[in-house]
Amino acid sequence: MTNRRIVLASRPEGEPSASNFRLETTETAPLKDGEVLLQTRFLSIDPYMRGRMSDGPSYAAPVGIGEVMVGGTVCEVTESSFPGLQVGDFVGAFSGWQEYAVVPGKGLRKLDPEKGPVSLALSVLGMPGLTAYTGLLNIGAPKPGETVVVSAAAGAVGSLVGQIAKIKGCHVVGIAGGPEKCRYVVETLGFDACVDHRSPTLYDDLKAACQAGVDVYFENVGGKVLECVLPRMNDFSRMPVCGLISQYNLSELPPGPDRSAVLMRAVLTKRIHMQGFIVMDYVSQMADFLRDMSGWLRDGRIHYREDIVDGLENAPEALFGVLKGRNFGKMLVRL
Amino acid sequence: MTNRRIVLASRPEGEPSASNFRLETTETAPLKDGEVLLQTRFLSIDPYMRGRMSDGPSYAAPVGIGEVMVGGTVCEVTESSFPGLQVGDFVGAFSGWQEYAVVPGKGLRKLDPEKGPVSLALSVLGMPGLTAYTGLLNIGAPKPGETVVVSAAAGAVGSLVGQIAKIKGCHVVGIAGGPEKCRYVVETLGFDACVDHRSPTLYDDLKAACQAGVDVYFENVGGKVLECVLPRMNDFSRMPVCGLISQYNLSELPPGPDRSAVLMRAVLTKRIHMQGFIVMDYVSQMADFLRDMSGWLRDGRIHYREDIVDGLENAPEALFGVLKGRNFGKMLVRL
Repeated sequence: MTNRRIVLASRPEGEPSASNFRLETTETAPLKDGEVLLQTRFLSIDPYMRGRMSDGPSYAAPVGIGEVMVGGTVCEVTESSFPGLQVGDFVGAFSGWQEYAVVPGKGLRKLDPEKGPVSLALSVLGMPGLTAYTGLLNIGAPKPGETVVVSAAAGAVGSLVGQIAKIKGCHVVGIAGGPEKCRYVVETLGFDACVDHRSPTLYDDLKAACQAGVDVYFENVGGKVLECVLPRMNDFSRMPVCGLISQYNLSELPPGPDRSAVLMRAVLTKRIHMQGFIVMDYVSQMADFLRDMSGWLRDGRIHYREDIVDGLENAPEALFGVLKGRNFGKMLVRL
Repeated sequence: MTNRRIVLASRPEGEPSASNFRLETTETAPLKDGEVLLQTRFLSIDPYMRGRMSDGPSYAAPVGIGEVMVGGTVCEVTESSFPGLQVGDFVGAFSGWQEYAVVPGKGLRKLDPEKGPVSLALSVLGMPGLTAYTGLLNIGAPKPGETVVVSAAAGAVGSLVGQIAKIKGCHVVGIAGGPEKCRYVVETLGFDACVDHRSPTLYDDLKAACQAGVDVYFENVGGKVLECVLPRMNDFSRMPVCGLISQYNLSELPPGPDRSAVLMRAVLTKRIHMQGFIVMDYVSQMADFLRDMSGWLRDGRIHYREDIVDGLENAPEALFGVLKGRNFGKMLVRL
């Protein structure tokens, strides 16, 4: 089978560009026993992908130069030498930016198209969902009546963090980019408030929205937003650190002054519990997550929005957009 | 009774100086029922006192202008209207920088001079001891074989953190100021290694001393030391944040670049659990602490060193010295 795929051509300095990727055409290998041939239907586009393009130390190995760009996918089985999967089955995979992939059938997650759109396996019922659920509940540990703030509130993870926090009885404040997203976060997702990080009055807006301070700040962005949330944090508050999208494209450290002294002082005097995590740390909670999230979806308590672009060749541009907050909802590429 | 006392005369900008204090002479009030007259024998001098001199937001109210400077004391009862205490008894109190104090007898901690030097109620068997014990065990949660690093390792808290970590079976590395303190930390306190934060090779020295990385960093200082420890932190490591002595005298933020991006990135990618605490958060563990620490002292497993200066009037200078790391051992003023 002729396979079009996008490989990493070079490592970006700062902001990535189209020249960091290369579209290639290859042939798929014949199936071995236990393998399946997958045809990609959806690629998930996520902020963490920027990290994989660099070779600095991180929690996962970088994508090698010339290797297919990584990423979660929803695929259709088009050929099978694996007894558990038939042609026409849909699966969740991690087969990256390519039209076809030959992979072992074992370990693929079979999806039931009767139960809802298969693309949800890349958002509400997949990695972003598990990230929101486990980070909020394990590290944030919100109690009813507490105030939960989440940045990138209209995004795949943030939108779920806030909705789960509402289900848990919290006062929930989102931070998002622009009035349209803020309106969506309040009117559709049901947050109590949402402030615009592009507004020059962010600091005061946040203060007004969090009159009782902040008990949980679910951190997706870093930088100026963190700076504005920090003074609002309550004693014994918690900060799950899930992402730092504002700094992924930095090619050098931001100019001074050195605000790490402010951060450390807040951690000390307010006894903040700050903890980084990645979703892989919590895969053992997948069954609990799927049970709860499927139930909430069924009951209409969780809303979501997908931002879909068509064509493999548009994946790089979709990633650049996600890194700038240009997407509105979970970013997917449909093939 | 004529009482000499030191009050806060003004708030410092940056480094405090003698002019921020004033020595006064007053008379003690007559005793009411349930009160005792205390004569101060030892004042404890501790880094946190710098925070109380300023009126910025913190975990405790600042000392008011004209008020007696706060601090832990060991005192002798010289008059008593409280049935539980006799003249001649020694007590641990929080009566501040003065020769005499009239306080309610209830709540004072009676000390037994037969069991060891009463001054230990201000160090190994007092607030610094409880700080080291609870911060290390609750937040650091070290496991046998793990590497524990502690800054201000020759200080009242740091020296105990490292010795407790050794008792718990850890590889323990101290960070201290100057070769004499480093030698003491290794040869007397029994740490596995100690590196000098004044050395230009601190970064490399720390790397060499922590070949398996750092699982627990007990933070007492902040600034450049933190910057050098951060790259050594292991995945899932813990950082109890107990103090930030390097930044207490800052009158403005350090110059750039803004290193908070580095700090946040380390927290995220290494899933570091960072948590501030103060000893008051853990007073409920006082009985466990006293039981364990008294036992370790009795068994000769805990060593300590006191740095004693005589005369109330020398308390300010003693505090300035502590803030610059000029003390060697627990700083006390003997009256």
